[in-house]
Amino acid sequence: MADELAFIQSLRALAPDPAARGLADDAAVLRIGEETLVLTKDMMVEGVHWLPEQSLADVAWKLLAVNLSDLAAKGAEPVGVLLGYMIGADDAAFLEGLQEALGTFDVPLLGGDTVSGEGPRTFSLTAIGRAPHSPVPSRRGAQVGDAVYLCGSAGGAMMGFEALARGGTADVTPFARPIALLAEGRALAPLVTAMMDVSDGLLLDAWRMAEASRVTLALDSRAVPLAAPEARRNDALRWGDDYALLFTAPADAQLPVTATRIGSVEPRGETPLRLDGEWHDGPRGLGYQH
Amino acid sequence: MADELAFIQSLRALAPDPAARGLADDAAVLRIGEETLVLTKDMMVEGVHWLPEQSLADVAWKLLAVNLSDLAAKGAEPVGVLLGYMIGADDAAFLEGLQEALGTFDVPLLGGDTVSGEGPRTFSLTAIGRAPHSPVPSRRGAQVGDAVYLCGSAGGAMMGFEALARGGTADVTPFARPIALLAEGRALAPLVTAMMDVSDGLLLDAWRMAEASRVTLALDSRAVPLAAPEARRNDALRWGDDYALLFTAPADAQLPVTATRIGSVEPRGETPLRLDGEWHDGPRGLGYQH
Repeated sequence: MADELAFIQSLRALAPDPAARGLADDAAVLRIGEETLVLTKDMMVEGVHWLPEQSLADVAWKLLAVNLSDLAAKGAEPVGVLLGYMIGADDAAFLEGLQEALGTFDVPLLGGDTVSGEGPRTFSLTAIGRAPHSPVPSRRGAQVGDAVYLCGSAGGAMMGFEALARGGTADVTPFARPIALLAEGRALAPLVTAMMDVSDGLLLDAWRMAEASRVTLALDSRAVPLAAPEARRNDALRWGDDYALLFTAPADAQLPVTATRIGSVEPRGETPLRLDGEWHDGPRGLGYQH
Repeated sequence: MADELAFIQSLRALAPDPAARGLADDAAVLRIGEETLVLTKDMMVEGVHWLPEQSLADVAWKLLAVNLSDLAAKGAEPVGVLLGYMIGADDAAFLEGLQEALGTFDVPLLGGDTVSGEGPRTFSLTAIGRAPHSPVPSRRGAQVGDAVYLCGSAGGAMMGFEALARGGTADVTPFARPIALLAEGRALAPLVTAMMDVSDGLLLDAWRMAEASRVTLALDSRAVPLAAPEARRNDALRWGDDYALLFTAPADAQLPVTATRIGSVEPRGETPLRLDGEWHDGPRGLGYQH
């Protein structure tokens, strides 16, 4: 079973509660007494998730930020994180970046585990959040007639990655030290019909939201706010790591945060995604599939 | 900073709340509304935490069991787990073992993350539990005059490991598929003064409990229930992976589960551990230090 998708599907079959969406959605939702908790877990692997040029301080930052971004998409405020850390070179840099990120996002380190190991290093982080608004947003609720919005932009991480990998003058920060839109997610949660963070590419994530919601998302590519040159628009829509919030809401909703309307929710047509009037016939080529 | 202990100490310094014991104790404790949650995270690395002879079904089982054992030591009942999984060979075996273990321990898989990677595989699991009894037991509460008890035995995992590694007729189950003493931990939580699970060796873990409680644990090595030949008693006391519960309680406490008295809590003497009347002068040689 070398196919990751097959593995994930088998894993999902192990989850007794179909509402336990952590393996399908990006976070698990857990009711504890009167509170709703959101739990996320993301791993990063050396040689896969970061460049050799990158400092482990940036890796630590990103490990935290990507997990907190999953909380943001649920409108949750972080309660704490657990770290799984493989000891090795540059531990001090990792610690420094972790400390900075914990301070910036105002979240405590609660615990974790350290291990020794040979070969590529693996780090893992679990974030626990508390969702003030229930039910928490998911990618499944987009309604026909809703507007599609993006809070944030596309392409900044792509430009940063290229500058790191190939040299250049672009700002590497959006790739190296992404920001989880926690306050935005909390403010949006009560009024969105569906929400997710854009981690694998705007078009791919839009495809997934449309699939989960059994609708079509009709997007206007020119409406998407770019953090890249206009000539790179097509690439930027397919690049991940920007951690913007993609959401749907009634077209007349008063938004509490700055967001850009990039399309509309339509009844399911030929496929889940229509871009500038063209049907896309599958998720391939829309983003980073892992 | 190649030294793991130094790294862990630096990590602890990042935790703003000294009561957040996840990096010192084996689990983090989190108050959520009226509920007390316990969170644990253990990683397992290929080439470090399992033998090449072992099936990934056993690895999956153990990954779950060791985390649940941390919950057991807190008197917590599992609410769910998140899996961090690196895709590779024998995924189907892993799934099978995971499913069996989830069923045996009656805990749902809530979510997680899968990654691709080269080289040795790393798996990580986060377990979330709910502790009915608060404050939850820790390793810090042993009181002078208490009795020291062991629920479970020592040496079974050692015998199983040796049978797997070198061949032999011993039962490999205690090593390959340990049992988390969840019901025992829950029953004990209201009456223990300190409790922890024995993961790194009985003597080493007793040393740690004594250090955390600022007392001396005086143990009678012959009193320890063995799951190994008598000739291996000294080894068994230093071998980990048995996941027995080590606890202290008032000497006249009525225990709700079967446990064996193995010593007494004394005022801090020369060192934290006195075994058969002899002072131990440091944790080296007492168990598996990682």
